[in-house]
Amino acid sequence: MKIALDAMGGDYAPEVVVQGAIEACKEHPLNVILVGDMKTIKDHLPGNGDLPRIEVHHCKEWVRMDESPMKAVRRKKNASIRVAFELARDGEVDAVVSAGNSGAVLAAAILTLGRIVGVERPAFASIFPGRKGNVILIDVGANVDCRPLHLFQFGIMARAFAVSCLGMQAPGIGLLSIGEEGSKGNELVRQAHNLYKSSDLNFVGNVEGRDIFTGDVEIIVCDGFVGNVALKLTEGMADAVTEMVEKELNASLPRDKEASPGAGLLRRLRKYWDYQEYGGAPLLGIKGVGIVCHGGSSPKAITNALLMADHYAKNNVSQRLSDEMQQFKSQENIFSMK
Amino acid sequence: MKIALDAMGGDYAPEVVVQGAIEACKEHPLNVILVGDMKTIKDHLPGNGDLPRIEVHHCKEWVRMDESPMKAVRRKKNASIRVAFELARDGEVDAVVSAGNSGAVLAAAILTLGRIVGVERPAFASIFPGRKGNVILIDVGANVDCRPLHLFQFGIMARAFAVSCLGMQAPGIGLLSIGEEGSKGNELVRQAHNLYKSSDLNFVGNVEGRDIFTGDVEIIVCDGFVGNVALKLTEGMADAVTEMVEKELNASLPRDKEASPGAGLLRRLRKYWDYQEYGGAPLLGIKGVGIVCHGGSSPKAITNALLMADHYAKNNVSQRLSDEMQQFKSQENIFSMK
Repeated sequence: MKIALDAMGGDYAPEVVVQGAIEACKEHPLNVILVGDMKTIKDHLPGNGDLPRIEVHHCKEWVRMDESPMKAVRRKKNASIRVAFELARDGEVDAVVSAGNSGAVLAAAILTLGRIVGVERPAFASIFPGRKGNVILIDVGANVDCRPLHLFQFGIMARAFAVSCLGMQAPGIGLLSIGEEGSKGNELVRQAHNLYKSSDLNFVGNVEGRDIFTGDVEIIVCDGFVGNVALKLTEGMADAVTEMVEKELNASLPRDKEASPGAGLLRRLRKYWDYQEYGGAPLLGIKGVGIVCHGGSSPKAITNALLMADHYAKNNVSQRLSDEMQQFKSQENIFSMK
Repeated sequence: MKIALDAMGGDYAPEVVVQGAIEACKEHPLNVILVGDMKTIKDHLPGNGDLPRIEVHHCKEWVRMDESPMKAVRRKKNASIRVAFELARDGEVDAVVSAGNSGAVLAAAILTLGRIVGVERPAFASIFPGRKGNVILIDVGANVDCRPLHLFQFGIMARAFAVSCLGMQAPGIGLLSIGEEGSKGNELVRQAHNLYKSSDLNFVGNVEGRDIFTGDVEIIVCDGFVGNVALKLTEGMADAVTEMVEKELNASLPRDKEASPGAGLLRRLRKYWDYQEYGGAPLLGIKGVGIVCHGGSSPKAITNALLMADHYAKNNVSQRLSDEMQQFKSQENIFSMK
């Protein structure tokens, strides 16, 4: 598998992104094409820049975090994220990974690869560490204003991903709401609830914010505004808790911190809540593979995202997703309810 | 101050609710009227039920957690939550506290006390423990589908509460969104952003989920669906973290758990994230005082909610809120934008 990595995307690009590619290729049988400014990238490659299984594809532009994604992707024909997806479109690579502007990833993916037939809105899925197992939250930011049908399709897409990429068996789908009864929630959720109920999906009903951490339901569906708020809230709370535990341990446990039991706790707490462990959010619903990582990704996070992209491509998730969409498309009664 | 306490509301009512009233009146100069079924309540009062500063007001109905709040409150004229607010309307009590169906609290408050002039939608505020100080999140569940003006008014109401009840000086107001730029967010948030920007409120702009835990911004505004998801997500994550830390400490720290440094950490962690410490969510925008507590409230949580109600009433928050609304009502350019 060959993966295009947007070398210019992310808070610490290109240095940390390049470092992630180097570590990934050293430890795993991956081929990576770094897409971005040749000179800047080469500055961060060791020696003369000739590394096994790492290539550089030069392009002179990129999309900044504060740019309007759609406008920037359309205007900058040589932007790294756009060029990366063009490599995928042309069959040069099997997947694209970026820690840059997630809106630009979405725009470039749709512009170059296009949506899978039947998919109204591609969506970002994020994997949370539930107590009983992983939980997929979808959408975490691609679509801030949704219709009920979009929420319904998110469930179908997440299921295809869960089964073909994460190895889940018949995952349950829950709708994120503010009470378990179908009558609870806002207008969007109440209508989406009815769509799910009339389908033959493994719909478990409404779930609440706390269910993201239990693992009782494998897939939790929400609009991209709610999902993104949830994602950032979780990150903020993880930071707050870790800081608090660290302060307490420093004050009360033995001075030899690394050897103390508290140090182990802190390490595991960090690891547990660390988004870097989970390798980024796949964009479901495009004709190909696109993974977006946190802007502040470390080399390790980039490595994990590359591994996820590799796994996603190998398991033919897009084909599976396309098959599922075809199957549901025939249920006209549902798809006519927009 | 005299407070009506809905003795029939909550997962462990009336026993735990009554216990909370007893503890509150033992330790603080409060007068409480327990509203609910006389016989059931008396069963949980010690001795012959004659306690200083605790009365019982009999009524034979109550609203269950799974009932449609508005219908139940309208139909059940003798429901405890409705009777409690009628006592407030008639000047018998200064405030109402309930751990019952929050929708029923909202419906009963609006039906009996009514909204403050100018307020379109009363909203629940919740207090979060930010690292730099308390953060008020509003709305956490009263209004699941909002218009931009509602979000604007939530900020005005929260400010009045923050200043007159929590002693905050010129609190900043942020809009919960998924990016700091005003162009980020869903349609509702983008329009509300413009309303705030054209006002003379201390608007700091959009904030993200993680800001709930920093305390950089004192007031964070969102619709009731997003706020309620955030509230329950926080509870779920607090439980998950506490369980994890507890398991780690049990496995790795000395056997004498209560005396170990880890036990202190766990106690403080629990205390920090415990909603019971914060005494419930005030309903802002009604002509009077209504506080709703978590359904699973302990006696201590009930006590803290009674103290908050007392504080709210003493500080004349409703009057302050009314004054603020009058002031903003004159800014017709904003209020005409619905």
